[in-house]
This record gives sequence, C-alpha cells and structure tokens, in this order.
Amino acid sequence: MKLPAKVTIKEVGPRDGLQNEPNFIETKDKVDWINLLNQTGLSYIEVSSFVHPKWIPQLADSEQVLKSIRRKPGVTYAALVPNIRGLERALNCQVDEISVFMSASEGHNQKNINKTIDETFPVLKEVVDEAKKANLKVRGYVSTVIACPYDGPVEPEQVLKVVDRLAEMGVYEISLGDTIGVGVPTQVERLLETLLKHFPPRLFAMHFHDTRGTALANVLKSLEMGITAFDSSLGGLGGCPYAKGASGNVSTEDLNYLLTGMNIDTGLNPQALIEAAFFIEEKLGKKLPSKQMVIARNERSANIDNARTV
Amino acid sequence: MKLPAKVTIKEVGPRDGLQNEPNFIETKDKVDWINLLNQTGLSYIEVSSFVHPKWIPQLADSEQVLKSIRRKPGVTYAALVPNIRGLERALNCQVDEISVFMSASEGHNQKNINKTIDETFPVLKEVVDEAKKANLKVRGYVSTVIACPYDGPVEPEQVLKVVDRLAEMGVYEISLGDTIGVGVPTQVERLLETLLKHFPPRLFAMHFHDTRGTALANVLKSLEMGITAFDSSLGGLGGCPYAKGASGNVSTEDLNYLLTGMNIDTGLNPQALIEAAFFIEEKLGKKLPSKQMVIARNERSANIDNARTV
Repeated sequence: MKLPAKVTIKEVGPRDGLQNEPNFIETKDKVDWINLLNQTGLSYIEVSSFVHPKWIPQLADSEQVLKSIRRKPGVTYAALVPNIRGLERALNCQVDEISVFMSASEGHNQKNINKTIDETFPVLKEVVDEAKKANLKVRGYVSTVIACPYDGPVEPEQVLKVVDRLAEMGVYEISLGDTIGVGVPTQVERLLETLLKHFPPRLFAMHFHDTRGTALANVLKSLEMGITAFDSSLGGLGGCPYAKGASGNVSTEDLNYLLTGMNIDTGLNPQALIEAAFFIEEKLGKKLPSKQMVIARNERSANIDNARTV
Repeated sequence: MKLPAKVTIKEVGPRDGLQNEPNFIETKDKVDWINLLNQTGLSYIEVSSFVHPKWIPQLADSEQVLKSIRRKPGVTYAALVPNIRGLERALNCQVDEISVFMSASEGHNQKNINKTIDETFPVLKEVVDEAKKANLKVRGYVSTVIACPYDGPVEPEQVLKVVDRLAEMGVYEISLGDTIGVGVPTQVERLLETLLKHFPPRLFAMHFHDTRGTALANVLKSLEMGITAFDSSLGGLGGCPYAKGASGNVSTEDLNYLLTGMNIDTGLNPQALIEAAFFIEEKLGKKLPSKQMVIARNERSANIDNARTV
C-alpha cells in the first residue's frame, strides 16, 4: 500500500475537545496544558474559540488563554472564529491563524450557526477577506461531511458545493469533519474520490470523531488516498453532544501510534503526549478514553502478567 | 477498494473473552448468554476451553456449558482443546468443532504451553488426527503473529513456518492472532503478503485484539487482501493479560458496524448483539468497552442534545 512519508497532526483538543466537556477548565490550567503541548512536537494547536461565550462557556476565556500561553517558534496557535466580531477579538490577541466553520448539511448548519448554508457564505467571506488583510491564514471546517444528526446521510456532491465556495474564498486548507463519528472507509473513499477530482489532496485535512470506533480505519483509507493532515484531540477528549458518554475526536496519541507504526513521520514525542494527557485528565477529573492512556495508566502501576492465553 | 461481499464473524467471547475476565461467571449465566447469542445470527460460537481448570479456572465448567446450551441448527459450537486429554473431554460433550493452538514465537509458546514450538507440533498432530477420526473439523490458532510480549517483533517467515505445519496436519482454517494488540495495517499487509504466496485467503481468519485501537484498521487491510473470517468478542470482552485495563478482542458489534456500513453481509442482527452484550455486562458487573455499547447505554437514557458544535 502506498502511504505518505510525513503527516501533520493538528491538535484540536483545547478547542474541540474542551468545548464538549461539561466542566469549565480554569484558565491557568488551560495555559499550563498548552505550554505542555508545546513540548510534544506538535506544530499546530487550535487553542480556543471566539464563538460567543453564551454558546460555548467552556471557552469564554479565549483572549486570556491566547495572551498567556508561551509561543514556541514554529508552532501555529489557531482559534475558531464565527464572524467579524470574533475576528476582531482574535486579532486583538495575536492569533497566528483562524478557522471559519460551517456544515455540509442544512440541518446541522441551522442548529449550529442559526443560518442556512447560503446565508452562511457571506458571513464567512467577510471574515476571510478581513483576515487576509491582517495577513492571517484561514482554515475552513466543514462539518457533517458523511452524515448529519438531523438530515441523515450527506452526499459527496453536497460537500463538494461547500468546499467549492470555501476554496473560492481562499482558505488554505479545509478540514472535513465526520462530526457524529458514523463514517466507514467506503464512505470516506467515495467522498474523497469526488473531492479529489477537483482539488489536490493537500487542500484537505480529515477530522474524525471516534464515536463508533471507525476513526483509525477511516484515517487509513484517507492516507491511501493521499491525505496528509489529520485533526485529533489529546486523550480522545471531548465526547459527542449527540451521544453522551461517547468518544470525542480521535485521540492524538492513538493516531500517532497508528501513523508512526506504519513508519509515517509525525514529529511527535509519544511520551510527551502521554504526560500532557495525564495533566489534562487530572484537571478534568475523569479518565480520558484513548487506548494509549489505558496502557499508560497500567504501565504506571502494573507488571507484565504471565497469564496463559491464546 | 475491493471488498468481499460476505464475511463470517466468529464469536470467541465465551472462551477468549471470559478466560481473560477476573471473575468466574456462573455456569447458568454462561448458558443463558450463549442461548442469547443464538438469537444474533452468529453461525460460529467458541463456547469454552478444555485447557485444564488449573490454568483457566474461569472456564472450569466447559462440560456443563456444552451439555446445557441449546443447539441451534446451522450454528457451530466449538471449543479450545490443548491435548488428547482435552479432546476426550470435548468429545464427551458433543462439541461440533475444536481448535488447537500454539504461538508463532518461542517465548509466548513456552509461557503459554510450556513447550518449545517444535515440541508442540506432535501434541497438536495427535489431537488433529484423533479429532478427524471422530469426524470433527479442526481449526488452528497461531498467537503472536505480529509481536510477542517476550520476544518482540515476529517475522512473517516465522509465522509461515507454523502455518505450514498446521496446514499439513489438515486444519481447515488458521486464526492469526495479534495477541497483544500491537499490530498496524502495514504489518498485517506484510504478514498476509507472505502467507498468501503459499495459501488461499480462505485458509485464514484474523484475530485482532484492540489494545491500541488499531483492530478495525487492521480488519480493513485484511478485507482488502481477501480475508473473509474474523474472530471477535461481544462487547470487546476480555482485556489483555499483558496490559491490565486494556481492551480485549475487537468487539463483535463494532466489527459488525464497520462491515455492514461497508455493505458487507455478516448475517448479524445489531440489536440482538446489543441485548446479549447487556446481559453479560450485567453478569460481569462492569461496563464493556465497545463503542456500540457506549452508544446503546446512552440511547437507553438520553435525548439528542442540540449542543452547538463544529
């Protein structure tokens, strides 16, 4: 099988992870955690969101977080921006890059943004135009690229329409989100086949949630189709608002295990990832769901057992 | 991608799952559970083990279980058999099929069987010969096909040597076990490339443990290479004796989700799987780790939350 030699893992735990956790993490703890993430080899950290705190109270301290973290040269500190007001707030604290977002399905876009898909484009375009004037790179998120919790299955052609418009606006990368974590590799293949007829693989990052355990199988198929950027959250942080108790984003350390096991360079230090995951796990007061964390907790306490097995 | 139209899922939860659970499950509960498994569409259930109860006390009641379960026409009720004494016990309770087992690595074979690999072959050959005289089909397990907890990485050529000998004995299928759940798809590909030069894909079943979350990615690669039989345990039962708290076999219901999502026929009823998983979960007194069970527990109690997410 043909795989890329190098992949970029984009850490979205401080934003997508924490926004789906019920408890507010203290600003100081967020800052300390991001400073630990600086030690892992990550080149991209989505630090927070400038969505109004009324909607995401967990990230109400985005300004303070962005102003307080240590900036490591070579690391991009990004934030989610919903509109021009959010952009102003983001610019005010020296964000390196912003992400705009919308959904491929009307139902999710309406619930999430309170606008139709058509009404959303001009809002995003205004943000992208202003961001460019400020010399900021802009990334685009498209949610529900496989299925929508309200509308059901989403056709690749519908995703292509949204991708077309975002590409036209000039975003440098589009993160394709299986927001509710239902996708399987044949669906990922069909989606990417459609998109890659029109755009190069480097335009896309894949953003899988591991709600049904298929995320790493979907990563494998994406790699085989030439994708070289993946979003993930340390520890598998975050959960899913559509399935309480379910896993959140695919975990950074499990993704890293898969990739490095296949000799793909990620630049990450697995031990530093685990240390940073232990830190945020303690602050959250709950066990993070990643497999690597289960093993790490075990290694901290147990010896190899010589049990007899097949 | 080319995938098979139909796959056989072989349920090993009552054997490989329960033998790795710390608590003894009452015989009546095992029987009731297997009777529930009869309602799921499974065509193959590994019911118990005739390894001496000194080594696997969890399955000390194998005779009673095999004699008490309801036999559904078309379902194969199999059991693990270590030697000729185990075969006699198995024959005494009308098992449909037996499995013999050994490891591809010396270290694991020694710890598990107390013999070198070379010393193990004649023991298995005696069992296979006698089983054939009794008109029993025999399946072979090869453990540690990717890596060994004692010897480290295992080369495909070493697996081939063991497979060669088992095939020569006349086992109808060989289940290749990533016993410690470390494998990634490139390793699965390299292993199967080596084996499929000499044998057809139908000789093999894949037996993945999901210790590091890579099981379903490994299943995907195996499917692409023509494999059409997979072992799994309901709920992801079992854990790993080499990593306490870690997941056991890949879960039947998550495997089934992946396969049926890709339009592969498994013959299984997902709702019946969940019901049978809830039954054994209650008897075990702990939450089973499969993703489908997380969703099922959630669906039993929660409503969809209209949280705002990307």
